[in-house]
Amino acid sequence: MAAEPVWSVDPRTGKPREQVAIEATAAEVDRAVRAAHAALPALADRPVRAAFLRTAADLLDGARAHVIEAADAETALGPTRLTGELARTTAQLRAFADAVEEGAHLDVRIDHADPARTPPWPDLRRWKVPLGVVAVYSAGNFPLAFSVPGGDTASALAAGCPVVVKAHPDHPATSELCASVLRRAAARHGLPEDVVSLVHGFAAGVELVRHPLVSAAGFTGSVRGGRALYDAACARPVPIPFHGELGSLNPVVVTGAAAEERAAELGAGLAGSMTLGAGQFCTKPGLVLVPDGEAGEQLLKSLADAVSQGEPAVMLDHRMRDAFVEGVRERAALPDVAAPVTPGAGGEHTVSAGFLTVPAARLTRAGRHDALLEECFGPVTVVARYASREEALAVLARLPGNLTATLHAADGEPGAPELLAALTPLAGRVLVGGWPTGVAVAPAQHHGGPYPAATSTATSVGITAIERWLRPVTYQSTPESLLPPELHDANPLRVPRRVNGVPDPAR
Amino acid sequence: MAAEPVWSVDPRTGKPREQVAIEATAAEVDRAVRAAHAALPALADRPVRAAFLRTAADLLDGARAHVIEAADAETALGPTRLTGELARTTAQLRAFADAVEEGAHLDVRIDHADPARTPPWPDLRRWKVPLGVVAVYSAGNFPLAFSVPGGDTASALAAGCPVVVKAHPDHPATSELCASVLRRAAARHGLPEDVVSLVHGFAAGVELVRHPLVSAAGFTGSVRGGRALYDAACARPVPIPFHGELGSLNPVVVTGAAAEERAAELGAGLAGSMTLGAGQFCTKPGLVLVPDGEAGEQLLKSLADAVSQGEPAVMLDHRMRDAFVEGVRERAALPDVAAPVTPGAGGEHTVSAGFLTVPAARLTRAGRHDALLEECFGPVTVVARYASREEALAVLARLPGNLTATLHAADGEPGAPELLAALTPLAGRVLVGGWPTGVAVAPAQHHGGPYPAATSTATSVGITAIERWLRPVTYQSTPESLLPPELHDANPLRVPRRVNGVPDPAR
Repeated sequence: MAAEPVWSVDPRTGKPREQVAIEATAAEVDRAVRAAHAALPALADRPVRAAFLRTAADLLDGARAHVIEAADAETALGPTRLTGELARTTAQLRAFADAVEEGAHLDVRIDHADPARTPPWPDLRRWKVPLGVVAVYSAGNFPLAFSVPGGDTASALAAGCPVVVKAHPDHPATSELCASVLRRAAARHGLPEDVVSLVHGFAAGVELVRHPLVSAAGFTGSVRGGRALYDAACARPVPIPFHGELGSLNPVVVTGAAAEERAAELGAGLAGSMTLGAGQFCTKPGLVLVPDGEAGEQLLKSLADAVSQGEPAVMLDHRMRDAFVEGVRERAALPDVAAPVTPGAGGEHTVSAGFLTVPAARLTRAGRHDALLEECFGPVTVVARYASREEALAVLARLPGNLTATLHAADGEPGAPELLAALTPLAGRVLVGGWPTGVAVAPAQHHGGPYPAATSTATSVGITAIERWLRPVTYQSTPESLLPPELHDANPLRVPRRVNGVPDPAR
Repeated sequence: MAAEPVWSVDPRTGKPREQVAIEATAAEVDRAVRAAHAALPALADRPVRAAFLRTAADLLDGARAHVIEAADAETALGPTRLTGELARTTAQLRAFADAVEEGAHLDVRIDHADPARTPPWPDLRRWKVPLGVVAVYSAGNFPLAFSVPGGDTASALAAGCPVVVKAHPDHPATSELCASVLRRAAARHGLPEDVVSLVHGFAAGVELVRHPLVSAAGFTGSVRGGRALYDAACARPVPIPFHGELGSLNPVVVTGAAAEERAAELGAGLAGSMTLGAGQFCTKPGLVLVPDGEAGEQLLKSLADAVSQGEPAVMLDHRMRDAFVEGVRERAALPDVAAPVTPGAGGEHTVSAGFLTVPAARLTRAGRHDALLEECFGPVTVVARYASREEALAVLARLPGNLTATLHAADGEPGAPELLAALTPLAGRVLVGGWPTGVAVAPAQHHGGPYPAATSTATSVGITAIERWLRPVTYQSTPESLLPPELHDANPLRVPRRVNGVPDPAR
């Protein structure tokens, strides 16, 4: 395998900026994984892990100007968005540090011996241990929050798992910069730098998921790429958990009453959500069910006004731009599909936002129009006009899994519970009002959903994301002298626990 | 596909007892799954679900004589063992009823809106919802506790998931009897009987895991069968979680000090554990590391005395008996392997217990002796004699994943922590002293472990087994009138929750 150069490319011009690295060979991937595996014991100390995560956040904040400059040059996402993304990323690292200190993720359960039972119960003490080395596959559209220093890395490190990150080809320089910051933070706390390492290249990514010492993987990206890696993870002699976030249509239902009540507001809100970040969010609303009739027309007019006022936007790379243009062209050519504002190629390096409309009746059974039920990455959405609640429900019944599903109804509208019940099986997050873009990094967040939104039932955002990288171990009849303090009766570290089947009041 | 008859067979004679059913066709599997899916909404009511599980336990206890007679006739496990297994099974159903009522499995997390944050946080309320129809693959060796009314079924129903069980061919009559009891219990509470249904036949089992309306599967059985079904689950257009328990060697390490201290007791204890239920436990100790030298010899002598006193035993079926005899023959023929008490064919329908010995040095690198590191179902264990702690650790480093790993050391022995640290990565349950057979159905239990012990990080025994059949959903900005009471601020049902990132004191 020749050493292929890895270039940072400016999406605003399509021109190479600099050579950042070379693609990792199989031997280099092996070396990175072995070094990460050797670093596993060093991460066992919870206070050190928490301090490391906080230092990583501090150093990233300290390097803010450099990080944002690098990320903007490679992704064209702009300094405002990237400043917000970095703040979210460092807040996320600190939130996981807090979680590591609290220890709720250890899910400690203690059952004292009960000799009165038939058969007698032995003393059982359960907690969770890190799975081992985690492979993280970075996302193109979030060079920070879902990439090297992002949620997968932060939650894996919080769980005590060393990480080998496969860089996304759209931001190799940002990836290198962030990896060096994380490694520096590790060294500050006496941890091996190899608790985080970085590899580049498609082949390296495949090597990584197949490596015997890799114990789990996290992925954010396309259905095609994610499914191929998921299949490889399952086909291993020893299969490993593969937590992938692959794709989502993010359906929205607007009821007749909601349209009557606030058509203009809904149209403008939808325009803002679907064009945010040039439509390159995994939570972009991609299918919006809008009622036939006058109020629905007003919503579309407001949407058209807002969308057509937008500036042409630069997408993350020219391959994505081409795929967007082609995806829109194919969908727009379908019978009965109209384009009130035509999305597609803008200037030489940009795209312009727009939307398509289609009668919902075209989507109630399988056919060519199923292309409209597949995610199209970029600033486009599909508005399906429905004649009746039954027709809207018939479309929902045909949808694949989603990260989000949104209902816009009027206050106390009698039909709302039925629609909410139809949306819940479709998604990991269900919104009533509002728009799905924007994912709060909050403890109760769930960013996942039925396939292909996710390949597991787990979340990639929020504190429970840590659960992906742990497995339970129960110690039976084990003297306290051989147990970690978290499992001692006295609970000296005050971790939340259940004892004898109920929450531990002693804490 | 011809309608193949399903016969109940007496393992004590190898003769058919009665025709119980016919194998399910693809159309019949489809019908069962659709009926189960239609029953999903009926299971949404937690109090009704809990009452149903308790009635199921009561009716099974009420049918004790019939159930045990049927199970003994088909499995030859004997009334004593089966009486205990039924008690464990009904206790398990009642424990899940308690868990359903408490609601901890809903893992409710509420974050109130925080407009002061940048960007502002919306109101987020997360709980867990049932995945859908669960396919349960019964085990041969536990006709009750890991079959129709067993842990997979009980935990899936507790989660709110209807179940389609694939009967094990070794106990079709017991399976039919138990299914009818569960269905009767459902009807008593106004639930559709199809919350539990039963299908027979290998092909039906494959159809089941591929059915689009099946959302998850639980399996207890062989590596070969379980891996084939796991692969099918992963290869679906929409992959589903497959929680399989496939195989385990259950290594035991006896230190020199422990052997010095209690050689006779250890030998007798090992004999009891490895011959229990004719060695047909998934937790049977299959590899025992015993030190070279006099104390080790005494342990072996005690083991030999106890094992050779045992009566020939009937295995679950003649195919297993043949596999046991052949498995022992192959292993015993390896260089340097001895059989102080020869296991193998007993009478025409029975087997006799025994054990093999091998120098641990034969197991420290890959080769023909790796056959000794594979589970051999039946009353045999392998004793590997080690010359040094390093040699023992070198053997452990080569082991696949296990349900259990056991350490016998002397009190306060200085080398114990290192051995425990080497055993923990190998297993889901780690014992210090005692023997791994016998799995308490306790809240802190973990019955699972690294592959091939399990295909996931989950447990199939204990209250947390319910987690396998749930997925989180977060409601964003949703009015209380549209939310279930578990997610209302007032917490009228008093479920355990975390609010704004900390345990809810209001409960």
